[in-house]
Amino acid sequence: MKTLRIGLVGAGFMGKAHALAYRSVAGVFRLPVDVTLELIADASQEAADRAARDFGFARATGDWRTLVTDTQVDVVSITAPNVLHVPIAAAAIAAGKHVHCEKPLAPTAGEARSLVEAAEKAGVKTQVGFNYVKNPLIALAREIIEQGEIGEPVSFRGIHAEDYMADAATPWHFRMDPAGGAGVIADLGSHIIAMARYLLGPISEVCGHLETVIAQRPAATGSARMRAVEADDIAHAMVRFARGCTGTIEASWIAHGRKMQIEFEVVGSKGALAFTQERFNELRLYQAQGETSRNGFRTIVAGPDHPPYGAFCPAPGHQLGFNDLKTIEMRDFLLDIAGEPRARADFREGWEVQKVIDAIIRSSRSRQWVRLD
Amino acid sequence: MKTLRIGLVGAGFMGKAHALAYRSVAGVFRLPVDVTLELIADASQEAADRAARDFGFARATGDWRTLVTDTQVDVVSITAPNVLHVPIAAAAIAAGKHVHCEKPLAPTAGEARSLVEAAEKAGVKTQVGFNYVKNPLIALAREIIEQGEIGEPVSFRGIHAEDYMADAATPWHFRMDPAGGAGVIADLGSHIIAMARYLLGPISEVCGHLETVIAQRPAATGSARMRAVEADDIAHAMVRFARGCTGTIEASWIAHGRKMQIEFEVVGSKGALAFTQERFNELRLYQAQGETSRNGFRTIVAGPDHPPYGAFCPAPGHQLGFNDLKTIEMRDFLLDIAGEPRARADFREGWEVQKVIDAIIRSSRSRQWVRLD
Amino acid sequence: MKTLRIGLVGAGFMGKAHALAYRSVAGVFRLPVDVTLELIADASQEAADRAARDFGFARATGDWRTLVTDTQVDVVSITAPNVLHVPIAAAAIAAGKHVHCEKPLAPTAGEARSLVEAAEKAGVKTQVGFNYVKNPLIALAREIIEQGEIGEPVSFRGIHAEDYMADAATPWHFRMDPAGGAGVIADLGSHIIAMARYLLGPISEVCGHLETVIAQRPAATGSARMRAVEADDIAHAMVRFARGCTGTIEASWIAHGRKMQIEFEVVGSKGALAFTQERFNELRLYQAQGETSRNGFRTIVAGPDHPPYGAFCPAPGHQLGFNDLKTIEMRDFLLDIAGEPRARADFREGWEVQKVIDAIIRSSRSRQWVRLD
Amino acid sequence: MKTLRIGLVGAGFMGKAHALAYRSVAGVFRLPVDVTLELIADASQEAADRAARDFGFARATGDWRTLVTDTQVDVVSITAPNVLHVPIAAAAIAAGKHVHCEKPLAPTAGEARSLVEAAEKAGVKTQVGFNYVKNPLIALAREIIEQGEIGEPVSFRGIHAEDYMADAATPWHFRMDPAGGAGVIADLGSHIIAMARYLLGPISEVCGHLETVIAQRPAATGSARMRAVEADDIAHAMVRFARGCTGTIEASWIAHGRKMQIEFEVVGSKGALAFTQERFNELRLYQAQGETSRNGFRTIVAGPDHPPYGAFCPAPGHQLGFNDLKTIEMRDFLLDIAGEPRARADFREGWEVQKVIDAIIRSSRSRQWVRLD
Repeated sequence: MKTLRIGLVGAGFMGKAHALAYRSVAGVFRLPVDVTLELIADASQEAADRAARDFGFARATGDWRTLVTDTQVDVVSITAPNVLHVPIAAAAIAAGKHVHCEKPLAPTAGEARSLVEAAEKAGVKTQVGFNYVKNPLIALAREIIEQGEIGEPVSFRGIHAEDYMADAATPWHFRMDPAGGAGVIADLGSHIIAMARYLLGPISEVCGHLETVIAQRPAATGSARMRAVEADDIAHAMVRFARGCTGTIEASWIAHGRKMQIEFEVVGSKGALAFTQERFNELRLYQAQGETSRNGFRTIVAGPDHPPYGAFCPAPGHQLGFNDLKTIEMRDFLLDIAGEPRARADFREGWEVQKVIDAIIRSSRSRQWVRLD
Repeated sequence: MKTLRIGLVGAGFMGKAHALAYRSVAGVFRLPVDVTLELIADASQEAADRAARDFGFARATGDWRTLVTDTQVDVVSITAPNVLHVPIAAAAIAAGKHVHCEKPLAPTAGEARSLVEAAEKAGVKTQVGFNYVKNPLIALAREIIEQGEIGEPVSFRGIHAEDYMADAATPWHFRMDPAGGAGVIADLGSHIIAMARYLLGPISEVCGHLETVIAQRPAATGSARMRAVEADDIAHAMVRFARGCTGTIEASWIAHGRKMQIEFEVVGSKGALAFTQERFNELRLYQAQGETSRNGFRTIVAGPDHPPYGAFCPAPGHQLGFNDLKTIEMRDFLLDIAGEPRARADFREGWEVQKVIDAIIRSSRSRQWVRLD
Repeated sequence: MKTLRIGLVGAGFMGKAHALAYRSVAGVFRLPVDVTLELIADASQEAADRAARDFGFARATGDWRTLVTDTQVDVVSITAPNVLHVPIAAAAIAAGKHVHCEKPLAPTAGEARSLVEAAEKAGVKTQVGFNYVKNPLIALAREIIEQGEIGEPVSFRGIHAEDYMADAATPWHFRMDPAGGAGVIADLGSHIIAMARYLLGPISEVCGHLETVIAQRPAATGSARMRAVEADDIAHAMVRFARGCTGTIEASWIAHGRKMQIEFEVVGSKGALAFTQERFNELRLYQAQGETSRNGFRTIVAGPDHPPYGAFCPAPGHQLGFNDLKTIEMRDFLLDIAGEPRARADFREGWEVQKVIDAIIRSSRSRQWVRLD
Repeated sequence: MKTLRIGLVGAGFMGKAHALAYRSVAGVFRLPVDVTLELIADASQEAADRAARDFGFARATGDWRTLVTDTQVDVVSITAPNVLHVPIAAAAIAAGKHVHCEKPLAPTAGEARSLVEAAEKAGVKTQVGFNYVKNPLIALAREIIEQGEIGEPVSFRGIHAEDYMADAATPWHFRMDPAGGAGVIADLGSHIIAMARYLLGPISEVCGHLETVIAQRPAATGSARMRAVEADDIAHAMVRFARGCTGTIEASWIAHGRKMQIEFEVVGSKGALAFTQERFNELRLYQAQGETSRNGFRTIVAGPDHPPYGAFCPAPGHQLGFNDLKTIEMRDFLLDIAGEPRARADFREGWEVQKVIDAIIRSSRSRQWVRLD
């Protein structure tokens, strides 16, 4: 059995999530490949050494440039700050590595496109970290929609709201660097746009509005100096899908009290689906059939009837956690590399999501609807 | 003690709700006036006679014109089809009656304005049936916002979705008559716009989109003939409030599974409020204070701490029903007439709401933002 | 049409609830009888006069003895302190009145039995105020059970918990007077026992435990003198129903945070029902059928499919309130008097409930199972 | 750094859960020891070989007797059928291994005691698989109770209900073998008893009732032969804790619709805690303080404020899954072995839980309260 050697860039929040997923994936799933944790890169050699010990990587480096060209690395996983996604991914592709990159893939659709073209030319596999669509109940939601169980979709409401930037005293940070792209519409909006596309297909038209509520923040933790913020912290958009139906997209990182509100409702001509990541082991389904006196939204609880839940636990109701979604994501990536493609959120998907983000930004500036090509 | 003699136009859904509220109001509250059910009008004398017996009115008429000029009537309550609101209200004002009218007040802001001017000139009291803002917990929500308990509002999401038109086999009916105004943006949208205004004040700018999903319906129950539908059955709008913050408004009468989803979330700089009419005896409050390990949205249950809940029941948790909201609404109207004004949803408020609706319609046509005067 | 003249004893919490229900009932329902509010009695003439004005009664008295024999009164509604239920009811029956009495009917089953025998001998109609079983969704729950839609019942969990006595500084009051019967097992326990019986039929055996947690309270508001409390403030019982299945009953009036937790779950051989009064316009139904991947508890929202909801409002999801349950209760009582019996919670039912309470008390003392006759 | 070599007995549901936890634990946490997956035993060599490949064990055996004495194994994890727990654990202890055993530890308290005494004599570390108490929010609940944040506990309601045996066509299986102990009171009841003890300390007295609802089942899958079932499938108990307060314990494996209802409510003299495993990343806290008009249960969402959540993810609301609880459990066991004790659910705790189970069984037979020694 072939062994894929992982090189991980970044040892922060998502770096650890990737590492844990790579550690678990071959124990959860029967895979046609093996996985080893080969090399980790972080901002300094010291930090990388510590991360290697913590996460179980064989080697460490303080320079991602070394990692992407290391001959012992087959797969590069990128969890660096957003502004570095493109250069690292481009270098890894150039070195012939398969590349997994966290979202948002690139600051603009144009840069995302370059990565897609490079990867396709190089013949390497790619993936973008839209982990929330990996939820078995989201797969179920898609199946329910595709099989017409709620009829033809007529509307969509999608939200991704959190509150990690709600405190005006939280200092400026890399997510607000215009060089890295937009603000919350990219950081969180990309997730709910990817979700919308996963469930209902391409978005053809948008009318968006971006708002910067907290217009300046401390330049750094404990700093008295204030730095202007240009990035949006609330984003709204009305959208039309290519299939015809309409909907809304909303993103906020200043939504006090919301820790992980990725929420959607899909209404169809015969029923509806409602979901929130706040209770992501539940999916609510309404079907306009049967005796009305006994009808209502039913709460489906995740279980082995919803693959690949059963690989984690053969009994329903035990619940998957966030890191399990990441493990499913890595399975899909590894299967894709092994020639059994399942993943759909490749760089091309990242590019498509970025096109929607770009269109929302343009729409917000022009204060008009914008059609996607 | 003065007695106010009620004349009710319409004996359907809302007609009964008005009648029940007038029956109860003086038992629930200590009022400076008495109330008697004097005269009811419905489409025919026979229907009106039956309604008079059912609801306890002294007299009945098959012609609303008779009612509005009846000298034994002090107050006219209008629950007729939308298209009749303006003519009945105008006639009642002309006859010097105090007028309560169900929403939407008028098909256009211009017509609403005429009613406002006529009523103010005539010196009669008016009210529009925005019953949902009468909920004691909505009063609490407003108080929390006004007192800065969640800081300065930064965003609003408002929804009013139901499914009573979700079945394409449901025939065309008066709510779809363009002569009566817009579709769901007027029928349900008016409620959530009134709610938004009640909580956060005037709306200064909108960007809306109206959609007609079910483009034709049976002309009548059991009819094979189809009739084209022009009215919107889904409405979206991005809005800006005069106070500065932004938000969204959404209305749908084809939202399968939703029976009464008037839902909002107000995010402020220090907390948030979340509410749904589906559980309207609960209000969820988050405040970014205290020990974070113990923090979270708290579910406030309606009780006597939330006036005027205690007038219905001195113990918390027993719950008000929809008809109780209507009783509070009638109290406010009667107090207003008695010279102890509390109600704010007078015809002027109906006009303001209609201005927002009109602006959303115009915006949907021009596909651009529209500023309210 | 015959007119029933109401005499109401007590103008407190439940007195007002009765008054409001009698005011509304003939407007909500088409009844074969009329209702007038004839006479109200309270602790003093002055209090009664005020209540008469507030609630709309024609006359007032400071002595319930006067009321129960008043020739202009057909129906006596008793909302006096528990300890007075038996003497007032007995006197009213002796005077040939129909009698509605709040729960608990009597301090002991023996006294309840005397009332039953007297009423049956006198040929008057009776009712006990088990208002929570009047919920349209509880009627639905019973129908679902009776029609076998969840199979044969195998277990029941019933709770009635509130927190109005949770504060140890709340003074001693009449509900703790041993002359009035037991504590929370009678005051709240009677409700959940009535619910259990309504859904599943007679209880044949109990094993109970009563606990007095707050063993002394201020003798009166503001009093420094403490008074010993003998009454239970937490009650537990394991029960067996005559039909065979088992279950538990629990009551508490010191359950901090719970304002109205009447909650039950009935498990059957093919499904289950779950309900809480905290959201009493919802009933949750699970049926072990259909595709398991789409199955789950469905949340049924009260609507006109659930009689008599439609008499209050023809649209689903608008919600009934507590006072509406009381209106349904009065309808059933009045129909019973008018010769169209629907009510089942007559004094005989009150006696049966009291037998269960008595058995739980005996069991708690003997620390053994007790069989009901 | 010392390396602990794991030997796992059983490759089914819990076997995989143990394997995944051992794989992850050193990546999630910084541990003073390393872990390797050394040897796995299953019913046959072939099954064990497959499991070794699937889970990443170095070696495999078809005989647990070989495993427990293998010199390359330091730690034995037992996930075999209940009836084998005692012999395997005893053999492993005898061989000087540290032993982790799934619950229930033993069929009777006497057998559990023997294991405790053997382990203490041998000086090996032990743990029983009460994974649900490992939830960071359960640690928070305990802390809240211990610090008096809800005052002095006055009552407890604990439930563990699932529906995996609800279908009468589900065949007889090892959990029903009387040789392995009781039925659901041991299988699920042990979890909620352990939870009760974790939160409130020792139970001093019980009054229980066990019920066998489905009295016979197919002898095996597809078999026409029926086999009598002696084991309980519903269990109820009233309990008293040594600290004084009372409560109830309930277990069912035939609770249709319930997939993982481990639910409790602890009421204290100043507040309450409510929890359900169905939404185990949430804890509901009520405190009787502050302005009552703003008070209510608050929903605390798991986050890095609740150790060791942050080791899995530094952002709140992302949610842990079931396997993560198992990883925390393994951390505690490994730290205990490494001389940094944290785990409290050792074999002594398993024995204590079994004493409660035994007392409930005795009480059910004698139909009286039973005092624990």
